[in-house]
Amino acid sequence: MKEIRIDDINNDIIIFSKDRSIRPMDKIGDSDKNHEYNKNCPFCRGNEEHTPKSTFKIEDENGWIVRSTNNKFPIVDNLQNNIYGSHEVMIDTYRHDGNFYNMSENEFYHMLLMYKDRYLNLIKDEKVEYVSIFKNYLRQAGASLNHPHSQIISISIIPPDIEKEINIAKKYYIENKKYLYDYIIDKEIKLNDRVINNSENFLTIVPKSTKYTGEIRILFKKNIRFENISNENIKELSIIFKNLFSNLFKVNGNLPFNIFLHTHPKKIEENYFNAHIHIIPRNHNFGGFELGTGLYVSSMDSRDIAKKIRF
Amino acid sequence: MKEIRIDDINNDIIIFSKDRSIRPMDKIGDSDKNHEYNKNCPFCRGNEEHTPKSTFKIEDENGWIVRSTNNKFPIVDNLQNNIYGSHEVMIDTYRHDGNFYNMSENEFYHMLLMYKDRYLNLIKDEKVEYVSIFKNYLRQAGASLNHPHSQIISISIIPPDIEKEINIAKKYYIENKKYLYDYIIDKEIKLNDRVINNSENFLTIVPKSTKYTGEIRILFKKNIRFENISNENIKELSIIFKNLFSNLFKVNGNLPFNIFLHTHPKKIEENYFNAHIHIIPRNHNFGGFELGTGLYVSSMDSRDIAKKIRF
Repeated sequence: MKEIRIDDINNDIIIFSKDRSIRPMDKIGDSDKNHEYNKNCPFCRGNEEHTPKSTFKIEDENGWIVRSTNNKFPIVDNLQNNIYGSHEVMIDTYRHDGNFYNMSENEFYHMLLMYKDRYLNLIKDEKVEYVSIFKNYLRQAGASLNHPHSQIISISIIPPDIEKEINIAKKYYIENKKYLYDYIIDKEIKLNDRVINNSENFLTIVPKSTKYTGEIRILFKKNIRFENISNENIKELSIIFKNLFSNLFKVNGNLPFNIFLHTHPKKIEENYFNAHIHIIPRNHNFGGFELGTGLYVSSMDSRDIAKKIRF
Repeated sequence: MKEIRIDDINNDIIIFSKDRSIRPMDKIGDSDKNHEYNKNCPFCRGNEEHTPKSTFKIEDENGWIVRSTNNKFPIVDNLQNNIYGSHEVMIDTYRHDGNFYNMSENEFYHMLLMYKDRYLNLIKDEKVEYVSIFKNYLRQAGASLNHPHSQIISISIIPPDIEKEINIAKKYYIENKKYLYDYIIDKEIKLNDRVINNSENFLTIVPKSTKYTGEIRILFKKNIRFENISNENIKELSIIFKNLFSNLFKVNGNLPFNIFLHTHPKKIEENYFNAHIHIIPRNHNFGGFELGTGLYVSSMDSRDIAKKIRF
């Protein structure tokens, strides 16, 4: 049973999803984390009988290398109308010991091709308004299983954070007769002190102000919808992922993180919003001041962070 | 240097506070946590030379039992106009090995008297619009020092989360010609299945819908301002704290938590908003779905939680 509930004093939106609490959790220390295959892992190649059939896969001569499947413990499902959607797991690589810090450019490329295919398929459903792609790395970032995986969720509502970003971009356009994302991209390239990487179609920066110290954003320079991204662009993005995570590992080691893609809701005039990726390091917990006020405290200069990771 | 910064794509408000990063951090395991006195602790009785002079204290024949002092690494200060305020540490008890799970009713009473005194003093400043009281217990909840302490921050702006709660309560009143908090209190008492405790002036509940699974709220039944709370009410509240945290310890053990008080901003017509206390257990980390959408997932029934803690 899934149900949308609203917190009566602050209007937070909660998806009540009773069955989620029974999903399996790996132990935090994974004794087999240094091997390509773990016999107890439902996401390992050879263990497909523990998950529903593939919704997508890419294969080489040894079997599949990336694969997606319906989440057995979904946050949303297609059984009611009040909150409708689907929830898939995308296995980033067949390698149990893979992670963003050691994956090759080619592994990122295949993973991103899978992201695109699943996005394209999920956004088509006429009841769906938005599709969210995200990844949790390590328990501190909310991961329950160790095998490298991402997740994709389609839903029948526009999430509050997306609505907020869209409204801000639209308001900026109305007031300034130019696009907010063009303005940010031009300004950051000109200043060039918070830029991690500037490639043909993407700008990777440490934003001047963010509630998450150390957050990195990859901005799409053009306002194309994510489902229309070309394979050349995906290639370019996989090079960025490879270099970015190699450098992050050198600076921070095996840090927990979240990634989420912010894309266009289905119904939007597209030109004032650009898709972008948020990468959030999870080395810090908010305290009661942040939780109680919605104000955030930062004490590190974005330029110092960008300088260390630049490529 | 303190500065208000706005995230350009989502309008999050960040207080940039460069000096905060140099504040001391206790090691997570505190070897002296089982003793009343720790010679290295700046908040222990006898070590007052490590902190600025007291802004408030209550003493018995052995010295002070609660005491507040200016935070040496403040989030806000009175040095600029753009973000103005003060930041004090309130030492909950002189006992280094004290915590909310083992404090006596009398210790809570003295602590709450200190909360009231500091609130009253800080809200008076004409540049101050809001005063926030909060507490972080254990590192996972954002605590940096082990000695039991709470914090109070006054600021020259109304925090976004307070503004949101106020607007929702006001809108409810305009649309329904009755007060939101009265409605919630009446409904919860009538249903009586999410109630932890119902005393003369406070209702303690597990809300039906909250983004934090296991959150507890203590609602003030009357819409008095926190600075006007009577000492009899403080007595009543300290009994609630004592019973609530004893029961929480029985159910969850030594769980990290945050507490924050939501009170009236200085300028507000008071009748449609009631002060309340949020108690947030920190046994769970949000993942990329929550961080990326502003939607939250819950899978536990509030009635089951309330039943275990009821007194």
